[in-house]
Amino acid sequence: METQTKKNWKRKLHEVIYEADTSQGRFFDVVLLILILASIVLVMLESVDSLDAKYHDIFYAGEWIITIFFTLEYFARIITVNKPSKYIFSFYGIIDFLSTIPLYLSFFIVGSNALLTVRALRLLRIFRILKVTRYIGESNKLTKALVDSRTKISIFLFTVLVICIISGTIMYLVEGEESGFRNIPVSIYWCIVTLTTVGYGDIHPITPLGQFLASIIMIMGYGIIAVPTGIVSAEYTKKALDNTGNQDEHIHTNTQSCSNCNHDTHHDNAKFCNHCGYSLHND
Amino acid sequence: METQTKKNWKRKLHEVIYEADTSQGRFFDVVLLILILASIVLVMLESVDSLDAKYHDIFYAGEWIITIFFTLEYFARIITVNKPSKYIFSFYGIIDFLSTIPLYLSFFIVGSNALLTVRALRLLRIFRILKVTRYIGESNKLTKALVDSRTKISIFLFTVLVICIISGTIMYLVEGEESGFRNIPVSIYWCIVTLTTVGYGDIHPITPLGQFLASIIMIMGYGIIAVPTGIVSAEYTKKALDNTGNQDEHIHTNTQSCSNCNHDTHHDNAKFCNHCGYSLHND
Amino acid sequence: METQTKKNWKRKLHEVIYEADTSQGRFFDVVLLILILASIVLVMLESVDSLDAKYHDIFYAGEWIITIFFTLEYFARIITVNKPSKYIFSFYGIIDFLSTIPLYLSFFIVGSNALLTVRALRLLRIFRILKVTRYIGESNKLTKALVDSRTKISIFLFTVLVICIISGTIMYLVEGEESGFRNIPVSIYWCIVTLTTVGYGDIHPITPLGQFLASIIMIMGYGIIAVPTGIVSAEYTKKALDNTGNQDEHIHTNTQSCSNCNHDTHHDNAKFCNHCGYSLHND
Amino acid sequence: METQTKKNWKRKLHEVIYEADTSQGRFFDVVLLILILASIVLVMLESVDSLDAKYHDIFYAGEWIITIFFTLEYFARIITVNKPSKYIFSFYGIIDFLSTIPLYLSFFIVGSNALLTVRALRLLRIFRILKVTRYIGESNKLTKALVDSRTKISIFLFTVLVICIISGTIMYLVEGEESGFRNIPVSIYWCIVTLTTVGYGDIHPITPLGQFLASIIMIMGYGIIAVPTGIVSAEYTKKALDNTGNQDEHIHTNTQSCSNCNHDTHHDNAKFCNHCGYSLHND
Repeated sequence: METQTKKNWKRKLHEVIYEADTSQGRFFDVVLLILILASIVLVMLESVDSLDAKYHDIFYAGEWIITIFFTLEYFARIITVNKPSKYIFSFYGIIDFLSTIPLYLSFFIVGSNALLTVRALRLLRIFRILKVTRYIGESNKLTKALVDSRTKISIFLFTVLVICIISGTIMYLVEGEESGFRNIPVSIYWCIVTLTTVGYGDIHPITPLGQFLASIIMIMGYGIIAVPTGIVSAEYTKKALDNTGNQDEHIHTNTQSCSNCNHDTHHDNAKFCNHCGYSLHND
Repeated sequence: METQTKKNWKRKLHEVIYEADTSQGRFFDVVLLILILASIVLVMLESVDSLDAKYHDIFYAGEWIITIFFTLEYFARIITVNKPSKYIFSFYGIIDFLSTIPLYLSFFIVGSNALLTVRALRLLRIFRILKVTRYIGESNKLTKALVDSRTKISIFLFTVLVICIISGTIMYLVEGEESGFRNIPVSIYWCIVTLTTVGYGDIHPITPLGQFLASIIMIMGYGIIAVPTGIVSAEYTKKALDNTGNQDEHIHTNTQSCSNCNHDTHHDNAKFCNHCGYSLHND
Repeated sequence: METQTKKNWKRKLHEVIYEADTSQGRFFDVVLLILILASIVLVMLESVDSLDAKYHDIFYAGEWIITIFFTLEYFARIITVNKPSKYIFSFYGIIDFLSTIPLYLSFFIVGSNALLTVRALRLLRIFRILKVTRYIGESNKLTKALVDSRTKISIFLFTVLVICIISGTIMYLVEGEESGFRNIPVSIYWCIVTLTTVGYGDIHPITPLGQFLASIIMIMGYGIIAVPTGIVSAEYTKKALDNTGNQDEHIHTNTQSCSNCNHDTHHDNAKFCNHCGYSLHND
Repeated sequence: METQTKKNWKRKLHEVIYEADTSQGRFFDVVLLILILASIVLVMLESVDSLDAKYHDIFYAGEWIITIFFTLEYFARIITVNKPSKYIFSFYGIIDFLSTIPLYLSFFIVGSNALLTVRALRLLRIFRILKVTRYIGESNKLTKALVDSRTKISIFLFTVLVICIISGTIMYLVEGEESGFRNIPVSIYWCIVTLTTVGYGDIHPITPLGQFLASIIMIMGYGIIAVPTGIVSAEYTKKALDNTGNQDEHIHTNTQSCSNCNHDTHHDNAKFCNHCGYSLHND
C-alpha cells in the first residue's frame, strides 16, 4: 500500500540516517556523534559521587533528553529499512537498543542504570562516520597490515600464553603464598603484568630465587616485545615500498547502505545492492 | 615373533598417536590437547584455596581420570615405537612421565602433588600439533627471523647484563640499604626491573643522586629497547622483501614420525626415515 | 625621522638578536641559552625547600640579574622590529613576556612567583637556535616522518581512546569502588596507565574477574604498542631507502628573519622577505 | 741492556697478554675472564649480609687470591709494553689499577673496600676478548647502526628532556607537595619515570587535573617510544638491504696490539703499527 512518494520519503530519511555522502547525512552524523559523546560524558560525571550529589537533577534531565533522542533515532532506523530485523539484530542495532532502554527499565528494575555504560560502545559508530573522511585510506592500510599479520600475531599471543602459564606455575612453587603468589591463576596474572612490562607492583617476588627467575622473565619479555613490533613494521614497510602493485586496489570511500537489507559495503559506482539486488538510487 | 598383522596394527597406532596427517591422528591430537588443557585448569583451580575447600572430591576424581588416560597414552607411546628408549629419554618423553607419575607417588611421598605443575610443560606439545595447520609457514618464518638474529640478540643481552651489573653496583653504593638496595644482587634485580621498564616500585631510589642516576638508566633503557625491535624488524623486513630467492625453501608441513626411532623431521614425500633408514609407510 | 645610520644600527642589532648566521648572532644565542638554562636551574633549586631556606638571598639576587637581562632583551627585540606587534603577539613574544614579568608583579601580587615556571617554555627557543647546526637536516627528516604519519597516528590515538573509554567503563562495573576504581574517569585513567605499560600500581584490580579483564587489556596494549612503532619505522625506512627522489628537497638552514615583519622561513639566497617584500640585506 | 732473547721473551708475553689470536693468548683471556667474573661474584656475595656473616673468612681469602693474580697481571702488562705510560693512563689501565688497589689500601684506610665494586668495570674487557669470535662482525654492524643514528638519537633525547622539564614543572604546580611532587627536580624525575613507561608508583598524581595531564604525558610517551625504535629499525633495514656496496668494508677481526705503544686497531695483514711504525711481528 506504499505510494511512490512515501517510498521516496523513506529513502531520503534512510540516506540521511545511514549514509554520510550527502550534506544532510553528514550533519545528522555529526549531531549523533555529539549526542553520543554527551551521553558518555554524562555517564562519567554521574559516576563521580561528589558531582552526582550536587547536580543530580541536571544529570537526570540530561539523561532523559538523550534517551528521547536515542528512542526517536532507534525507531527512525527501524522504519526506514525494508527488512527491520536486519538492523535490529545487527551488532549496532543491539548496542543502540541497549543504549536506549536503561532509563525506561529503571522504572521497573532498581540498578538497571548500570546498563547506561553500554553507551560507551556506541562510540564504535565513530569508525563508521569516519568513513567519509580522508582517514579511510590510511585506516584501511592500517587494518590490512594488522589483518595480514593475523596469523603471526596469533602464534605470538599463543606463545606468550604458554610462557605465562609455565612461568606462572613455576613462580607459584618458588614464591608461595607469603609473597602474594596466592594461587596459580594469580601467578599467571603476575606473569602477564610482568611480561607486558606494566609492573603494578601489587605482587612482586621477595625471595632471591624468585627475583632471579623474575629477572629472566623480564629480559625474555624485553625480547618478546620486539616480535609484534617487528611483524607490524615489516608488514607496513612492505606495503609502503611496493606502491607499484597497489594501483588496482581502489579504496571505496562511499557510505552507501542498501535501504532494503542494510548491507553497507558497495563500490563507489554501484547501482544495485551486491547483497540483495535492491536498487541503491532514488530515481 | 611379530606377525605382519601385529606389526601393521602397531604401525597404525603409531601413526594415530605420533602423527597428525590422518583424520584419526588429528582427532587423537585434539582429544589429547583438550585433556592437557583440562589437567592444567584442574591444577590451577586446586591451587585456589577457596575452590579446593569446596570441590576437593571432584578435583581429586578428575585428577585420577586424567592420570589414567595419561598412563594409557604413555604406555601406548612406548609400545608403538620400535626403540622405546628413544621416546622415553626424549624431551617430551620425560615431560610425559613427570606429568603422569605424581598421583601414584602421592601414596608414598607426601607433597609430591607439586609435581603436578609439570603438566604445564605438556602445553609445549601444542607447537607439535600446530604443525598440521597453515600456521607452520608463518611460525617457521618467525622462528627463522629469531634464529637469524641470534648472534645480534645474544650480544645485546650480554651488553644489557654488563650494564645491569655496573649500574646495580653503583646504585648500591649511592642508595645504600635504607632505600631497599640491600645488597648488590638486589640492586642488579632493581636495575633489570628498571631497564626493562617493568618498574614494580618495590625498590626505588630515594636520594636525589640516586634518582638522577636512575633517570639516566631509564633513558638508556628507553634507547636500548629500540635495539632488539630494530633487529627483528630489519630481519623480518628483509625476509618479507626478498621473496625471489625464497622459492626453493619449501616448507614441509607433514608430521610423519619414524615408527622405529621416532625421528620427526621428514620431507613431504620421504619414503624412508632420514635418520635410521626405516620405511615410513605401512604397505 | 630615522636616519640611514640609525636604521643600519637597528638592522645590525636585529641580525644579532634574531639571526644566528653571523658570529655575533651565534654568540648572542649561546649567551641567551646559558641564561635560560640558568633561570630554569634557579627556579628548580628554589622549589627545593631545604636549599631555598639556606640560599634564599643568593637565589633572589640571581632572579633579579636574569630578570634585568630578560627585560633588556625583550625591549631590544621590540625596538629592532619594524612592526613590534608582530613580535609581541607571536608565540615566543608571549613566552618572553611571561618569563620577564613575574618578579615585577611580585611587588603587587603575592604568589605570582609561580609564573616563573613559565620560563621552562623558553627552552623551546633551543630548537630555533639548533637551526644553525648540522642537526637541522636530521631534525627535519624526523619531523617529516612524524608529519607524514600524522593521519595514521591520529587514527591510532583515537582507537586507543575508544578502547580506554570502553575498558574503563567495564572495569568500573567489575571492580567497583573498593578496589580504587572510584568512578569512570578514574577507571579510564587506570586504563591509560595500563595500556601504555606505565603501571603505577596506585590502582590495580583485586577481583579475579577484574584481573582476568586487566590481563586481556595488557596483552592488547602489548599488541597496540607495536602499531606506532611500525608506522614510524616504515615511514623512516621508506625515507632512508628512496634517496633518489630526495635530491631536489634542498634544506634551507639559514636563520634569516625579516626585520620588518619577523617572518623567518626564507630560502638560503632570498633577497626579499617572501611575506612582506621587505629587503633582507643591509645595503 | 736488552738482549734479543729477552726482547723475544717480552714480545711473546705481550702477545699472550694483550692479543687473542694465538691459542695461548686465548687461554690467558679465558682464565682472566673467569677470574674477573669470580671477583665480581665475590663482591656481590660479600654485599649480602647473611652470607658475609657466615663465610667472611672464605671471602677474604678469595679476595687475596684474586688481588695477587690481578697484581701480577698488572705488572706483566706494564713490563711487556715498551712505553708503560701508554698502558697505565689508558682507560683499561686505570680500571685495572683501581681493581687491584683496594685490598692493599684497606690496611691504611677503613672503608676503602667500596672501591672493590670498581671491578664491575673490568667486565668491559669482555668486549675486547669477544673480538676473536664471530660476534665481531655483528657487533660492528650493531655499533655502526647506533653510531649512524647518533644525531637522530641525540635530537630525540634532547626533545625528551625539554618535554620532561616543561611537563615536570607543570605537574609540580598542579599536584603540589601533598602528592609527592615535592619540588621541580622530583617532578622531572617522575616525568622521566612516566615517559619511559617504567612507572614505579612511588610518586603518582592524585588530583583529577593531575591525572588528566599525566594521561596526556603517558600517551605522548607512547608515541615517543616509537621514534628511537623507528630510527634503529630503519638504519638497520637499510644496512641489511644494501649488501652490494658493503663488500669493500672488510672487517678486521684480529686483536693485534703494538708491543711499543699498545695501539690495537690494525689491518689483518698489517706488518707495522699504523700508530708508531713499530714492527708487529716477532721475527
